[in-house]
Amino acid sequence: MALNQIRESPSLGFIDWTLRGIGQVVFQNNPWSGLVILLGILFNSWIYAAICVVGVLASTLTAIMLKADRGLIRDGLFGFNGALVALSLIAFTSENFQTGAIPSPAMFVYLVCGAALSTMAFASIATLLGPHKVAPLTMPFVLIGWLFLFAILKFDAIDAGPMAKPVSPDQFSYVEPIVLPTWYMGIGASIGQIFFQDNWITGYIILVGIAIHSRIGAGMCLLGAIVGTAVAAIFGGPEGAIRDGLFGYNAALTAMALGGFFLVFTWRSFLYAIFGAAVSGWLWASVAIFLKPIGMPVLTSTFVIVTWLMLIGQYAFKALVPVPPAEATSPEDNLRRHAGRG
Amino acid sequence: MALNQIRESPSLGFIDWTLRGIGQVVFQNNPWSGLVILLGILFNSWIYAAICVVGVLASTLTAIMLKADRGLIRDGLFGFNGALVALSLIAFTSENFQTGAIPSPAMFVYLVCGAALSTMAFASIATLLGPHKVAPLTMPFVLIGWLFLFAILKFDAIDAGPMAKPVSPDQFSYVEPIVLPTWYMGIGASIGQIFFQDNWITGYIILVGIAIHSRIGAGMCLLGAIVGTAVAAIFGGPEGAIRDGLFGYNAALTAMALGGFFLVFTWRSFLYAIFGAAVSGWLWASVAIFLKPIGMPVLTSTFVIVTWLMLIGQYAFKALVPVPPAEATSPEDNLRRHAGRG
Amino acid sequence: MALNQIRESPSLGFIDWTLRGIGQVVFQNNPWSGLVILLGILFNSWIYAAICVVGVLASTLTAIMLKADRGLIRDGLFGFNGALVALSLIAFTSENFQTGAIPSPAMFVYLVCGAALSTMAFASIATLLGPHKVAPLTMPFVLIGWLFLFAILKFDAIDAGPMAKPVSPDQFSYVEPIVLPTWYMGIGASIGQIFFQDNWITGYIILVGIAIHSRIGAGMCLLGAIVGTAVAAIFGGPEGAIRDGLFGYNAALTAMALGGFFLVFTWRSFLYAIFGAAVSGWLWASVAIFLKPIGMPVLTSTFVIVTWLMLIGQYAFKALVPVPPAEATSPEDNLRRHAGRG
Repeated sequence: MALNQIRESPSLGFIDWTLRGIGQVVFQNNPWSGLVILLGILFNSWIYAAICVVGVLASTLTAIMLKADRGLIRDGLFGFNGALVALSLIAFTSENFQTGAIPSPAMFVYLVCGAALSTMAFASIATLLGPHKVAPLTMPFVLIGWLFLFAILKFDAIDAGPMAKPVSPDQFSYVEPIVLPTWYMGIGASIGQIFFQDNWITGYIILVGIAIHSRIGAGMCLLGAIVGTAVAAIFGGPEGAIRDGLFGYNAALTAMALGGFFLVFTWRSFLYAIFGAAVSGWLWASVAIFLKPIGMPVLTSTFVIVTWLMLIGQYAFKALVPVPPAEATSPEDNLRRHAGRG
Repeated sequence: MALNQIRESPSLGFIDWTLRGIGQVVFQNNPWSGLVILLGILFNSWIYAAICVVGVLASTLTAIMLKADRGLIRDGLFGFNGALVALSLIAFTSENFQTGAIPSPAMFVYLVCGAALSTMAFASIATLLGPHKVAPLTMPFVLIGWLFLFAILKFDAIDAGPMAKPVSPDQFSYVEPIVLPTWYMGIGASIGQIFFQDNWITGYIILVGIAIHSRIGAGMCLLGAIVGTAVAAIFGGPEGAIRDGLFGYNAALTAMALGGFFLVFTWRSFLYAIFGAAVSGWLWASVAIFLKPIGMPVLTSTFVIVTWLMLIGQYAFKALVPVPPAEATSPEDNLRRHAGRG
Repeated sequence: MALNQIRESPSLGFIDWTLRGIGQVVFQNNPWSGLVILLGILFNSWIYAAICVVGVLASTLTAIMLKADRGLIRDGLFGFNGALVALSLIAFTSENFQTGAIPSPAMFVYLVCGAALSTMAFASIATLLGPHKVAPLTMPFVLIGWLFLFAILKFDAIDAGPMAKPVSPDQFSYVEPIVLPTWYMGIGASIGQIFFQDNWITGYIILVGIAIHSRIGAGMCLLGAIVGTAVAAIFGGPEGAIRDGLFGYNAALTAMALGGFFLVFTWRSFLYAIFGAAVSGWLWASVAIFLKPIGMPVLTSTFVIVTWLMLIGQYAFKALVPVPPAEATSPEDNLRRHAGRG
């Protein structure tokens, strides 16, 4: 009740929607999750925390101006891609990837426009996938991120620092041995990298934020990060990339999406999600190599590709119990609703 | 009446359909617009004018042989992608980009087949987008253009000249200052480049052709070219590329599509179109950099990507008034029809 | 009757489904076709024959575990993409492309996972194309093949040999003259290359396997290979690539798909298929050049692109008589059924 009143209030409502937008990056339609995640980002860098809010605001205000569905806006669904677009544009143009840099005025206009375009891209991809009951995921961000990152390098008015962050496994040494810190730092960083935070402690704070709303979600996120990291370790991926969480962030997202959120949580969908996480780990390397000649980062493209490949045909497999995006609230709710029906 | 008789006449009808096909490149279903545009091309180079007609004929005759819908054929909708395929194959394989070269027999067979395939691509893309009431735009051309341009370089029988035209902003100098001629030549060339005419006067003749059928269309075309050029100038794009109209041709098309043609002309859709034109200007640079390693030109891909991203989700935004492709005739007609309903 | 009993038997049924899976690569839902093709592969290399079976098993068992439609599983439709994924991963990572190499344990796990993912990809692409009554063709294989081939190069545990096989026309000499063996070896190898068999005799054995089930299918396959080879010869493609069947394998598949299988066999669809085969020949070169900077093979992408472009819009052309995938059994059956209706 009290929370619903906040949502309806003109002044406080906006704060609620914004925090939900941050939470939605990791499928959490919950302002407290969003707040903890934002604090986690703040722990790493105040610049990124501010940019994250700017991104959510830009894309959500665009949705309001275009008179999009109020329910979707309130659930933060127009915000999370905007947040990621803004974060990625700062992350890959800053001298220091870890802390980010304050954008120039030209860059600021540019990233606000990118975040705004993500709102239209979200509506378009949702329209295309609507008949198949599959969500756009972070594809709007991946698409806009790639398109806007490329152009940046060609305009004098935007001072793009050297891409400080290696974007491909090639750029890491293979001789470094895998040690204990590789594991706990790599797994934490995997979760941090979802928000471009190269900080393993931030990763674990984000995990706490997820757990506030959904234990299953947090569990799958952690497990996905572990699987992605383990696959890379077993198959001999470079230690530096593993420790930076690069093999794990797509795997963590895939595990959350398939393990309870868009499929009712059963032991079959659990195995399905683990399989998806392993594939996401492998394919991060794949897409990185594909994009390397043009110096583009993978973003969350692997997560989207694997999850779409494993969800669009979901109704063909009777072993899975699909949850349409409009009904997907949390793994726990999905389970309860399904039990009620069964 | 008289015009309808011409359309029905077996001999003259074909001329009518062909001219409409040329006009449809810039959304003008009007034979006089097509004629003026053809004269504009002729002013620059008789070779291009002839090739343009060959392209329209090849793709339209293919549609007739396959027994496609008569209404679509008469409206020139199977012709405009064929014209662009034929023009692009000549433009990027001629020693002299500006005037073009007469194709060899092998090349002639090749471009006729490319134009013919664009008819099937048009039908396929229209089928895919049909449920969402969005038009294929020039995507058939972009796809066939890319596929056929690549192959050309590998066949001995087709003598591909050196790609005389720079295809990426990288290839232009950044030190040149932007002067008055950069503006009036760049804006005119932007319109000319839609038809691969590197001639700013041709661009203004094409603008007159558009104005015959639609003042709003001509206004948005000019405004789009201005926005694309201005965005590049403000963000520090290279002067040579601006003067050649490379930043503006996608922007001009996007502005026309969104500003009155596929959305009823209101102040909201006007701003929406201006935003789309600005994004198209930026993203031309983006796609150019993406394609540079393989030496491929951007063609009108940026226009298609931006316009699709901004139109496919149109029904999610109550601030916009969509016009289904089957009803889109001209911005003026759309306004009139909408006023009648409102 | 007897055959139906075999299909229903728990032990022998599986053999039936597996052989049909192999046959489905070339549109033959017939266990004897599958058996002859498998023998053809065995004639070239026992390793490839074994890997082919492993691929079909991995993807078909995945479909069974996920409780997919029994009818589709029995028809081998979940098997053929798995076979191709497994074959391609061995072909492009073996020191000797022609015979293949026995995979390491890590590689074995990897290719089984790739084949398993092709089952989900098949369901997803079938879902997307369902409303347009077009089949996924070998797109699941092309997608998974590309994604899994890239990643391989980055994992120490998988010992990728040097890509022994040239993947682009660039890597062949242009000075070699085209002689009689270029023709009969090139045409045979074109059919062999569909299964990654660089052996022209294997190609003709596969042709016999196709003829067991469908004379029209075998005829179109041969004709497609001839057209692809001839187009390359006339337009001056490099002799080595022609002799290796690289210009012909996509053309052969396109000719089979359009010439009687997904369109009722008439003189119009015959010409349509020949046109498609010629375009597939050209565009093999195109895609090869596009993929060369990243060293990726074309696989059967050209076949899929051309066939989709020519089929998705099929209902727009009254000159063609489409056959929905669910009814497409063999060109002969399609003809009979259509005659019965007409």
